[in-house]
Amino acid sequence: MSGLRIGVVGAGNMGADHVTTLHRHVSGAEVTVVADIDKERAAVVAGTVPGARAVDDPYAAIADADVDAVVIASHDSTHADLCVAALRAGKPALCEKPLAPTLDECVRVVQEERRAGGGMVSLGFMRRFDPAYVELKSAVSAGSCGAPLLVRCVSRGVSSAPGCTDELSITGSAIHEFDTVPWLLDSPVMEVSWHAPRPTAAATGFRDPQLMLLRTADGALTTVEVFLNAGYGYDIRCEVVGEHGALALTDPARIVADSARARSTGYPADWRPRFADAYRLELQAWTDAVLAGTPSPLATTHDGLVASVVAEAVITSMRDGGTTVPVQVPEV
Amino acid sequence: MSGLRIGVVGAGNMGADHVTTLHRHVSGAEVTVVADIDKERAAVVAGTVPGARAVDDPYAAIADADVDAVVIASHDSTHADLCVAALRAGKPALCEKPLAPTLDECVRVVQEERRAGGGMVSLGFMRRFDPAYVELKSAVSAGSCGAPLLVRCVSRGVSSAPGCTDELSITGSAIHEFDTVPWLLDSPVMEVSWHAPRPTAAATGFRDPQLMLLRTADGALTTVEVFLNAGYGYDIRCEVVGEHGALALTDPARIVADSARARSTGYPADWRPRFADAYRLELQAWTDAVLAGTPSPLATTHDGLVASVVAEAVITSMRDGGTTVPVQVPEV
Amino acid sequence: MSGLRIGVVGAGNMGADHVTTLHRHVSGAEVTVVADIDKERAAVVAGTVPGARAVDDPYAAIADADVDAVVIASHDSTHADLCVAALRAGKPALCEKPLAPTLDECVRVVQEERRAGGGMVSLGFMRRFDPAYVELKSAVSAGSCGAPLLVRCVSRGVSSAPGCTDELSITGSAIHEFDTVPWLLDSPVMEVSWHAPRPTAAATGFRDPQLMLLRTADGALTTVEVFLNAGYGYDIRCEVVGEHGALALTDPARIVADSARARSTGYPADWRPRFADAYRLELQAWTDAVLAGTPSPLATTHDGLVASVVAEAVITSMRDGGTTVPVQVPEV
Amino acid sequence: MSGLRIGVVGAGNMGADHVTTLHRHVSGAEVTVVADIDKERAAVVAGTVPGARAVDDPYAAIADADVDAVVIASHDSTHADLCVAALRAGKPALCEKPLAPTLDECVRVVQEERRAGGGMVSLGFMRRFDPAYVELKSAVSAGSCGAPLLVRCVSRGVSSAPGCTDELSITGSAIHEFDTVPWLLDSPVMEVSWHAPRPTAAATGFRDPQLMLLRTADGALTTVEVFLNAGYGYDIRCEVVGEHGALALTDPARIVADSARARSTGYPADWRPRFADAYRLELQAWTDAVLAGTPSPLATTHDGLVASVVAEAVITSMRDGGTTVPVQVPEV
Repeated sequence: MSGLRIGVVGAGNMGADHVTTLHRHVSGAEVTVVADIDKERAAVVAGTVPGARAVDDPYAAIADADVDAVVIASHDSTHADLCVAALRAGKPALCEKPLAPTLDECVRVVQEERRAGGGMVSLGFMRRFDPAYVELKSAVSAGSCGAPLLVRCVSRGVSSAPGCTDELSITGSAIHEFDTVPWLLDSPVMEVSWHAPRPTAAATGFRDPQLMLLRTADGALTTVEVFLNAGYGYDIRCEVVGEHGALALTDPARIVADSARARSTGYPADWRPRFADAYRLELQAWTDAVLAGTPSPLATTHDGLVASVVAEAVITSMRDGGTTVPVQVPEV
Repeated sequence: MSGLRIGVVGAGNMGADHVTTLHRHVSGAEVTVVADIDKERAAVVAGTVPGARAVDDPYAAIADADVDAVVIASHDSTHADLCVAALRAGKPALCEKPLAPTLDECVRVVQEERRAGGGMVSLGFMRRFDPAYVELKSAVSAGSCGAPLLVRCVSRGVSSAPGCTDELSITGSAIHEFDTVPWLLDSPVMEVSWHAPRPTAAATGFRDPQLMLLRTADGALTTVEVFLNAGYGYDIRCEVVGEHGALALTDPARIVADSARARSTGYPADWRPRFADAYRLELQAWTDAVLAGTPSPLATTHDGLVASVVAEAVITSMRDGGTTVPVQVPEV
Repeated sequence: MSGLRIGVVGAGNMGADHVTTLHRHVSGAEVTVVADIDKERAAVVAGTVPGARAVDDPYAAIADADVDAVVIASHDSTHADLCVAALRAGKPALCEKPLAPTLDECVRVVQEERRAGGGMVSLGFMRRFDPAYVELKSAVSAGSCGAPLLVRCVSRGVSSAPGCTDELSITGSAIHEFDTVPWLLDSPVMEVSWHAPRPTAAATGFRDPQLMLLRTADGALTTVEVFLNAGYGYDIRCEVVGEHGALALTDPARIVADSARARSTGYPADWRPRFADAYRLELQAWTDAVLAGTPSPLATTHDGLVASVVAEAVITSMRDGGTTVPVQVPEV
Repeated sequence: MSGLRIGVVGAGNMGADHVTTLHRHVSGAEVTVVADIDKERAAVVAGTVPGARAVDDPYAAIADADVDAVVIASHDSTHADLCVAALRAGKPALCEKPLAPTLDECVRVVQEERRAGGGMVSLGFMRRFDPAYVELKSAVSAGSCGAPLLVRCVSRGVSSAPGCTDELSITGSAIHEFDTVPWLLDSPVMEVSWHAPRPTAAATGFRDPQLMLLRTADGALTTVEVFLNAGYGYDIRCEVVGEHGALALTDPARIVADSARARSTGYPADWRPRFADAYRLELQAWTDAVLAGTPSPLATTHDGLVASVVAEAVITSMRDGGTTVPVQVPEV
């Protein structure tokens, strides 16, 4: 049995979760190196996997002889450079979203990858592997609701991370929907507009919630609600309304409690329980594809670029007071 | 026992339903006269109530000595004139929505009523009496979800009436939401915009579905989806998202069936089963108030005017390609 | 307009609710007399209806010239005598369940009524008028789930009334199911057995919860759970499992709240909100039938006798340690 | 990376599923040998795993030098002998339920295992690893519903396998509940009784559905409904009612569809989609434990013996017309 030896770059929450998932739940995956600029943090995470080593230089991890492939889960600002390093080392990489904070950097990665032959870098839009979204897409594609006309996406969380801004709400959270919607409809976003009510008192210094309208090439209209400080729980919803019916994600709770005059199901505090399966299946699919030498079924760098272009257009609309802004993906 | 003797004008579906409800389910109400320009139709409906008479002149019904109060359920184009006739006859009236097809006529009724002393004409925005909406409003007012930020209204039907247009979709259907939202939030609509995906193939000659954004004075942002040809059923939804949580109407189905690989609840084919209780409670509340000489708890003519003003603003936005349009209620 | 003048006997919770419902929500009903041995209590309740008088002698109420028909909502022990008095006065009566605390008394009322010509006394098994149960029965009768095989009834409450006993749990609560199940299946109960887990600490001095098995003539097997001190809320469930599927009542909550990591609907504290519509529709149906001189669509005294016979059989099983006991309805 | 080399005995549906799951989704597992008396079938299944060999002698598979541990998924009648062979070969085994068709054989395996030192054979009661059941058990243990009083288990399927009998319904299906209930309540079953309505027309030659009552040592009372020919879908339910509330599994559907006057979620046709995660997590937990040399967290052979003893008691009750039968686990 010859597994895929993986170096994980970034030992924060996301990276640590990936290390655990790869080690404990992904068949054929072997974490050999964990890198973090905070080497102590890297050591703690590496310590959970027998035989894994910790390093503080991500480039050393990528170059390491015991590393066949790389998972990039470090700070967003490092993504582009690390992707390029992996490309140059000829090692497949799975980069967490977003591909990069700026469009220029996204373009650079796409171009570098194209030069390298393509298909080397996958992007971690994990919702594409969430069993519920997969089933939704499958039903939409099968025509269960007829041709889609309206889509409603809701993304609510308990509270925003410190330092959140109007823009980070879009590039960090809404970006999931910017990838999910065209994937679900098999149709790209053509124009967008940004709207918002007065902000919640719980959000300091930025607009929360936000509401975005996306128009896709198929003529469907999507509303994306992002509400990071919704308070009550982490809650992701999606409904597709078509010519003959509607399809939606269900409440994913597994148990229901009757107590104190109420019938209730629980919400998780953050995205991890909600998307644990999605991450596992994404990492498994990536590992399988790399081991088999087949094309990665994950989102591509170009998908990442496109999502970032949509995010930029939304930001432009926001700054222009809600005008409708066309989405123009640069030729790469 | 001295009941309220009611003349019902209009013996179409709505009028006939009101006659049945008043006769069979409203305490203290007595239908004495049914009027319709099609006297045969009036006779059929009057025939369901012992002692009720049919006439073909609505004005004669209003003037009839056996009529203490009037329910107006005839064609929209007749509402204003009939309201004015009731006012001049000094008889309380309950007029079906809309108050009138044009703003000028709405203004005229409001002015006539003011001259008559006020409070004589009630408007049939029956959702204000739907037990689910009432419970929703009560919970919102009690602060259960915190200050409202986002509202989502969905109004879907099986198929549109013949001759439906872009405008009728707004003035005939969306108008319910234009009354419900400010009532629910206790805050008037200040500006609106209109949006739509490509129309469904099932709608001939008009835009369906439509999506409207309403901004209320409290800073909340509402989306109103109207989809008359949704096909699958009559489905009304409403969610209010506030600073501490969200509140929504539940699926009102009473039984659930397990059959043929599915667990399902049913949708009605039209609004009547969904709002039967609302109509009954509205008619009861109106009858009680008229009998007691207390102020009507129903929507007022001014509420009807305001809803029509919002509808006009939405139509303006639609014609201007989705621009944001302020709502300006005329001083009356 | 000539209404039905009703005397209500018993001004406790149930009687007071009936007075309010009759006065405010039942077309054609007029409460003229309220009787209670506690005349002050009668006066308070009568005071809510213009023109109603209070008396302290229930027999005087029945005999009163202003009373056309009687609603009996006094203590269970008085039901039989009052029914007989109404029969002898030739006045239609609606008696709250149970018909009487003993089988002998039940038989006596049935016999007296037969002598009087039949159809004079209706029994208040209001679930037969609950819209959800009605829809369930209609779907079962239409064959939506195929021939019924299993039925599951659950009847849970917050806490039992003071002085509750093993027997009262059966004759006061489970008796609803003893009427509902044969009505739903259109098949009488043939044998029963009684079972129970250890009692909840919340029940002092009696077995709570209890579980009963009922076998109906059609061969179906029903479980009836009665749990008076369930604590969390008033919760009535019913599922019918047939040869091709299953049908069940839904959770009747009208709004759903997202708050504090939970998605929840509420439970009422007692049966009144749950069955308010059932009581209203039952009283309306009874009033309509009496006014029209048509047969009452309510449960009959014989239905009441049968339910009490089933209750007796269950009590016998309980006392015999859970043996299977046949149900033998006396020839009357 | 040194994986666990696994021989899978039995290449029917269950065995083939296990091979796929082990190969594709279990970290650290490597299928090296697939055995089936139908060698062609073994070859087809082995062919899905690079490097796996097919054999037709299960004992050869157990003895194989490339096999570290054994999964037994062959015919029930072979379980005991194969478990003993694995024990004698000193190789850990995961045996599908039931441990054996007769109590004598169950006892033999338990005794052999004890002699071998214990903990070598695990039993495949996979519901213990189903995330929903795990969450339910965790909530029950945490006291979320108070001390359990009533449990309701429902196990419905589309149609029974050919040749099903009254007894197979109990030993093959209800046996899952006989393990799940004591695991959930942490309390053994002390006595049982068997009941049934008339059988569905869809079941030829045996009683279906069946209803069993289980009394556990903690005083709780459980109903187990098994309905193999329920027709509408594969549907597993479980509710625990305690002193302060109730807890239940939710409908596990991931998407909901609005279509043709109905709102619906789907049911799977059999157990595999419902328990795919449970099998995966069970196999992962077993692989992890074997590799780590730690005690297996799966059900033990003694658990398997106990479940079979409960099944025997239920069969005795069935043959005695529904009498209450004590559960007496033999000293082993």
